[in-house]
Amino acid sequence: MGKARLEAFSDGVLAIIITIMVLELKVPHGTGIDALVPLVPVFLSYVLSFVYLGIYWSNHHHMLHATRTVTGSVLWANLHLLFWLSLVPFTTGWMGENHVATMPAAAYGFVLLMAAIAYWILQQRIIATQGSDSILRVAVGGDWKGKVSPLLYLMAIGLAFVSPWIAMAIYVFVALIWVVPDRRIERVLVGKAR
Amino acid sequence: MGKARLEAFSDGVLAIIITIMVLELKVPHGTGIDALVPLVPVFLSYVLSFVYLGIYWSNHHHMLHATRTVTGSVLWANLHLLFWLSLVPFTTGWMGENHVATMPAAAYGFVLLMAAIAYWILQQRIIATQGSDSILRVAVGGDWKGKVSPLLYLMAIGLAFVSPWIAMAIYVFVALIWVVPDRRIERVLVGKAR
Amino acid sequence: MGKARLEAFSDGVLAIIITIMVLELKVPHGTGIDALVPLVPVFLSYVLSFVYLGIYWSNHHHMLHATRTVTGSVLWANLHLLFWLSLVPFTTGWMGENHVATMPAAAYGFVLLMAAIAYWILQQRIIATQGSDSILRVAVGGDWKGKVSPLLYLMAIGLAFVSPWIAMAIYVFVALIWVVPDRRIERVLVGKAR
Amino acid sequence: MGKARLEAFSDGVLAIIITIMVLELKVPHGTGIDALVPLVPVFLSYVLSFVYLGIYWSNHHHMLHATRTVTGSVLWANLHLLFWLSLVPFTTGWMGENHVATMPAAAYGFVLLMAAIAYWILQQRIIATQGSDSILRVAVGGDWKGKVSPLLYLMAIGLAFVSPWIAMAIYVFVALIWVVPDRRIERVLVGKAR
Repeated sequence: MGKARLEAFSDGVLAIIITIMVLELKVPHGTGIDALVPLVPVFLSYVLSFVYLGIYWSNHHHMLHATRTVTGSVLWANLHLLFWLSLVPFTTGWMGENHVATMPAAAYGFVLLMAAIAYWILQQRIIATQGSDSILRVAVGGDWKGKVSPLLYLMAIGLAFVSPWIAMAIYVFVALIWVVPDRRIERVLVGKAR
Repeated sequence: MGKARLEAFSDGVLAIIITIMVLELKVPHGTGIDALVPLVPVFLSYVLSFVYLGIYWSNHHHMLHATRTVTGSVLWANLHLLFWLSLVPFTTGWMGENHVATMPAAAYGFVLLMAAIAYWILQQRIIATQGSDSILRVAVGGDWKGKVSPLLYLMAIGLAFVSPWIAMAIYVFVALIWVVPDRRIERVLVGKAR
Repeated sequence: MGKARLEAFSDGVLAIIITIMVLELKVPHGTGIDALVPLVPVFLSYVLSFVYLGIYWSNHHHMLHATRTVTGSVLWANLHLLFWLSLVPFTTGWMGENHVATMPAAAYGFVLLMAAIAYWILQQRIIATQGSDSILRVAVGGDWKGKVSPLLYLMAIGLAFVSPWIAMAIYVFVALIWVVPDRRIERVLVGKAR
Repeated sequence: MGKARLEAFSDGVLAIIITIMVLELKVPHGTGIDALVPLVPVFLSYVLSFVYLGIYWSNHHHMLHATRTVTGSVLWANLHLLFWLSLVPFTTGWMGENHVATMPAAAYGFVLLMAAIAYWILQQRIIATQGSDSILRVAVGGDWKGKVSPLLYLMAIGLAFVSPWIAMAIYVFVALIWVVPDRRIERVLVGKAR
């Protein structure tokens, strides 16, 4: 089974998720600049989630680049990842509308944590289909970002009960370490080609 | 006529349907964990429908893999299937918001039943274009899942009037028997290739 | 300039339009079957518009199949068509929610009329790029459907002021004459290949 | 890394943005033609934004046509552009619902300005990947439209505080100078092929 349709479907779902979030930015009723003020936290949550979904799209792109066969279990692991990502607009909206309260901030982290786990499962399923000389296994060998992120999300969920702003700071930090483009797979692929 | 655009359009519609459902998960007004409680049945209905749409996408993927020509009747049979699937977010929302009441549970089953029939019609139209040596006909020869599912949906619709939870249990059961990836077509394709 | 991206973008927009309409089917508050009754006209308008958009998608598919080059004017003629089609969910909702009143029924016809004109313009732009031996020109030579439909829409808009149900009947009639798949282009293409 | 998925994702996001805007055209409650009157400014804003997004899609299409490699920084520059474009439905709705008031008209221009800057950054990133003999650099050499537009947006933002209608007139004017299809890249590509 080819991977083209899996990519197309994932692109479609991610494109919709990233765009649906903006529907949370409901058109304000006033016309003054003060009418925008209550939207600021919603807007900032939207920016953060846009970056997270961009990271997922970019990494998903790289990972499937190093994938050849799509088995049934890869297909379902991919749907599982998309499921958790589809909940991002919900937790983004909840966090934004409540100006970063405790439970919404923790829920935001929970969905990010589950997405990170789902991404890891998908990665493992693809490596399993590639056997012992898996390009992807080599590529993600020193995947410290993938290992550190879930731990940071867990920390953020716990610290949200101290202050939701600490959780928020951790989410921004994790996004920043990922925005640096993931050159690991590219490097190994280039190395193999030489 | 090629099948690439049919796949692309179907992927687009399925991606949108699967993502639109999450819009039913309206952002709660409170910030406590109790604000999430009324969302639990909506959330569970969403999970179930996400799995169903995943099953349809996966099976549609397999079926078109074994398809070569797309005639006008295949095209319309496909649109007919997408029509019924596009109603899933509606019945999902109705069932979820009413904590699994009788009529919504029956309506949910009715849409699943019509989608199953539409899928069967699409399958027959494709087999008809392939003539007597149809790969797809061989592949779905022992299609017990495809035969049993509509009967189970019918049962569920009837039993919803006894208890909507019985109907719900049947929907979960049908989803489970399908989540096991459909290896029938793969097997025949592999068999042919040998 | 290739046509692949034009097709992909058009498929995307059409897939979204066709799916967005179902959002008009707002989840009813009651749980009885009577809660569905006020939705019946909305549902029927949705079915009609789904069929119309299916017809446009199918014909667009055929037309681009007979297209080679995409110039700037083809690209804008295509966007112009998508613009009018994007208004279909609006007039569908207006007509459905008002149980087929005069103005909404006329507005529905007006948008269909403008889409038909936009489709005709797109067709002319493509024929112009193909020069004197245009496959598409031959294919649509006896295009009585394309010529009759705008006249019928005009009639329907006028007759909506007598009774919106006459307009409705005309819209159903036009849809029916189109649902018969458009074999004209296929026939000419097959004829050329011989 | 290939550019096919970047194009597909961008097409998806642009298709969704362009279609989501029409959701702002909320179905009116009355059935008379007067029920449409308050929608006129919303409708006109929608037309303007549809044209702007069409321009972006068309130019993006041309630019990627002259692009070969997609690096991490191109990918993020593209996401940055999509981010600002995703805010267009929001400012469109705000401007339309308030019948072109000062702040909404200025906000509309601000988002257009940021999108223009994001487009310019993306262009620079692509030129950087192409080295000294960049096709794209030659193609956009005399890019007076790209240089003039941001200045006009800035002017419009300032003049919105004199009268929002002057700002509006400038937005219409900028759209008009762009609707003329961008033949620059085509010309250079054709020139190279000779």
